[in-house]
Amino acid sequence: MSQSSWLPISPSSHFSLANIPFGIISTSSGPTHRPAVAIGDHALDLRAFATADGFSANPSIQNHAGVFSSTTLNAFASLGRPFHREVRAYLQSIFAADTPHPSILKDNTSLRQSALLPLSEVTNHLPLSIGDYTDFYAGKHHAYNVGVLFRGPANALQPNYTHLPVAYHGRASSVVVSGTPIHRPWGQILPDPKAEPKIPALSRCKRLDIELELGMFVARENELGKPIPVDQAEDYIFGYVLLNDWSARDIQAWEYVPLGPFTAKNLGTSISPWVVLADALEGCKTAGIENETELLPYLKEKTRENLLSIDLEVDIITPKGNKTTFTKTNSRNLLWSWPQMIAHHTITGCNLRTGDLLGSGTISGAEPGSEGSMLEQTQGGKGTIKLEGGEERKFIEDGDTLVIRGRAGEEGALIGFGEVSGTIQAALPLF
Amino acid sequence: MSQSSWLPISPSSHFSLANIPFGIISTSSGPTHRPAVAIGDHALDLRAFATADGFSANPSIQNHAGVFSSTTLNAFASLGRPFHREVRAYLQSIFAADTPHPSILKDNTSLRQSALLPLSEVTNHLPLSIGDYTDFYAGKHHAYNVGVLFRGPANALQPNYTHLPVAYHGRASSVVVSGTPIHRPWGQILPDPKAEPKIPALSRCKRLDIELELGMFVARENELGKPIPVDQAEDYIFGYVLLNDWSARDIQAWEYVPLGPFTAKNLGTSISPWVVLADALEGCKTAGIENETELLPYLKEKTRENLLSIDLEVDIITPKGNKTTFTKTNSRNLLWSWPQMIAHHTITGCNLRTGDLLGSGTISGAEPGSEGSMLEQTQGGKGTIKLEGGEERKFIEDGDTLVIRGRAGEEGALIGFGEVSGTIQAALPLF
Ligand SMILES: [Ca+2]
Ligand SMILES: [Ca+2]
Ligand SMILES: [Mg+2]
Ligand SMILES: [Mg+2]
Ligand code: NI
Repeated sequence: MSQSSWLPISPSSHFSLANIPFGIISTSSGPTHRPAVAIGDHALDLRAFATADGFSANPSIQNHAGVFSSTTLNAFASLGRPFHREVRAYLQSIFAADTPHPSILKDNTSLRQSALLPLSEVTNHLPLSIGDYTDFYAGKHHAYNVGVLFRGPANALQPNYTHLPVAYHGRASSVVVSGTPIHRPWGQILPDPKAEPKIPALSRCKRLDIELELGMFVARENELGKPIPVDQAEDYIFGYVLLNDWSARDIQAWEYVPLGPFTAKNLGTSISPWVVLADALEGCKTAGIENETELLPYLKEKTRENLLSIDLEVDIITPKGNKTTFTKTNSRNLLWSWPQMIAHHTITGCNLRTGDLLGSGTISGAEPGSEGSMLEQTQGGKGTIKLEGGEERKFIEDGDTLVIRGRAGEEGALIGFGEVSGTIQAALPLF
Repeated sequence: MSQSSWLPISPSSHFSLANIPFGIISTSSGPTHRPAVAIGDHALDLRAFATADGFSANPSIQNHAGVFSSTTLNAFASLGRPFHREVRAYLQSIFAADTPHPSILKDNTSLRQSALLPLSEVTNHLPLSIGDYTDFYAGKHHAYNVGVLFRGPANALQPNYTHLPVAYHGRASSVVVSGTPIHRPWGQILPDPKAEPKIPALSRCKRLDIELELGMFVARENELGKPIPVDQAEDYIFGYVLLNDWSARDIQAWEYVPLGPFTAKNLGTSISPWVVLADALEGCKTAGIENETELLPYLKEKTRENLLSIDLEVDIITPKGNKTTFTKTNSRNLLWSWPQMIAHHTITGCNLRTGDLLGSGTISGAEPGSEGSMLEQTQGGKGTIKLEGGEERKFIEDGDTLVIRGRAGEEGALIGFGEVSGTIQAALPLF
């Protein structure tokens, strides 16, 4: 779709009329958190819009307009995909150049002034209250690359890897919105990993890294004990964000056997603020990494076009101001789809709830320059990443800002995520 | 303390005047969830008590009495340990035989009738809304026993085990209160674990097990990025429950490498309904399993008496009605204390929140008959557990009810947990 809007929207905007992503905002004059959509370089304050009868031309939305006075998107998400679809289509019709309802916003100067806010004047917050966060490991190139570094090529991919979407439960409390600074963590590391016996030290993390991931928010709950069939799993998806799973590699290497990563990952996980609805990305499906393993029936999908195709890139901005895009890849580089992850997550009966966040796992391409972590790109710190201005990095240094961007679609009708950004600050003095 | 009460309390009651545990109840005539304390075979409805000015003799409690109209204990917990201590002491004074305030409850027939409810007439609910659930692995005998079964004696305990309290993030959504039935899960297992290549099947779990644990609820939050010093960690503890971490061993063995248990554990975790306040257990501290490893300073405590001493036992009740106590142990069988777990959990900056639940890890003694899981007691299913009536078990069978009980203190002044019970129902047909 490349429909035009009466609102000027740059063709390069991530937030075209084809997108309509949802978030939670506040402003300096209105500190209460409230829902909004992003369009061009504006946010439409949905609380203000709903309160001024903006949804009056659609009674079925109007009946539920109370969800737009909530401080999170959970109530909206829980109403389900047909409702999300209807709201998105309605808002597209409101912003369309040939809107059938010009009196609602286009010709309503007062509501435009009160509800249509420059993005530069809004503060974003976590879009949903997150009950549980699960991080998958569906990026096969990443899993292989990291497996080689942690366990050698022979054991890089475990025997279960192609049979089930490997995952671990993550930490919901430390999921933060883009822009939140993260302090370099302290933690237990092995100063000399090869020495025997192994004697750890408490140290500032020396191998702090990013993980380029997509995040998915759950719309609906299932009952405890009742797995979600893979063919129904799409109904449980609210939408997607970019996700940076900050990872302390030296802490992770020491702690993760046998129960998985813990303090290496719970220091913070950053997400982009605007949730791109599942419906907005319906046209962006493609085939992912081929899985030659015969799957068990509960993981078999009817289509091979089961993955989102979103172009992704990562910038690093150093304290000297040098900005370098050091990774470009695409979200098709996954072995497992979101419906497969949902089906597996619930196969033993686990109940998902509205607002749960699932991470895809790190997305790396097969070629150099497409790796979703610095660990991979520097082969465990043996190499370096060459940056603009003659700088280089093995891992993140204090003051570095990492930015992930993602977009699908064509100029003029981009379905973009904006970005998730975070600056690593020096470690705080301990106690 | 063995103070007596005007309310008849059996000397064998877990809920003596020395205890005063907090929970969330409803009744058939009053379905709204509300706080209560257990005393003898009664629950004191704190909403009814507070509404009738039951706290009027203590202005500092009265000022916050609104927390007793909440549907969870989170608001109460977040007020901190000095407040919990004050409320507990006040309620003890109200129930004391020589209460200084007889008009409030003892001589107030109408309030006794409306607020003092037989436990048999109340329904318990989850005591707190749980943001995140973390399961530790501090039971050294258990970790060793299971390590032998999963990886052999040489690799049973990993090199990190005595240096840090190993843990993984668990699943908060599937934590349920005692009495909630659990369906035997379906999941991926290896029908022949030794065959190569490894070909999994989707199957009903064949090795369903319990894990006998203590759970701890967090009272206060810390700021993201700010670790909690081990010497301040007690201030963050609200109280304790019994916890059964239902575990699908065949699913776990196949899925857990390299990121830890996932679907084998997220099928459900059961907890006892009454939270025993940290203050009630202050007198029940003892030394735990000695750790000969020199600890890093952030894990060093001033006292060796850092563990709770709670006698624990597990019953199985078969569908034929045979009841057997097959495990007796004590919560001192841990290598790490709760303050050490908190200090480690937050060392990289992870923020705890009010209502977070931490599990201790399975508590097993060193002797036969003290193991906290059937896996250990049957050495991975090679042996059997002999039950009353000539029955036997390797793992849980359909219709079995598992009951964990725990208590500290002496008859007449018991500080007990009551029990956490759950019945395993047959697997549901899949889709
Ligand atoms: Ca990750
Ligand atoms: Ca456990
Ligand atoms: Mg993370
Ligand atoms: Mg569990
Ligand atoms: Ni009575």
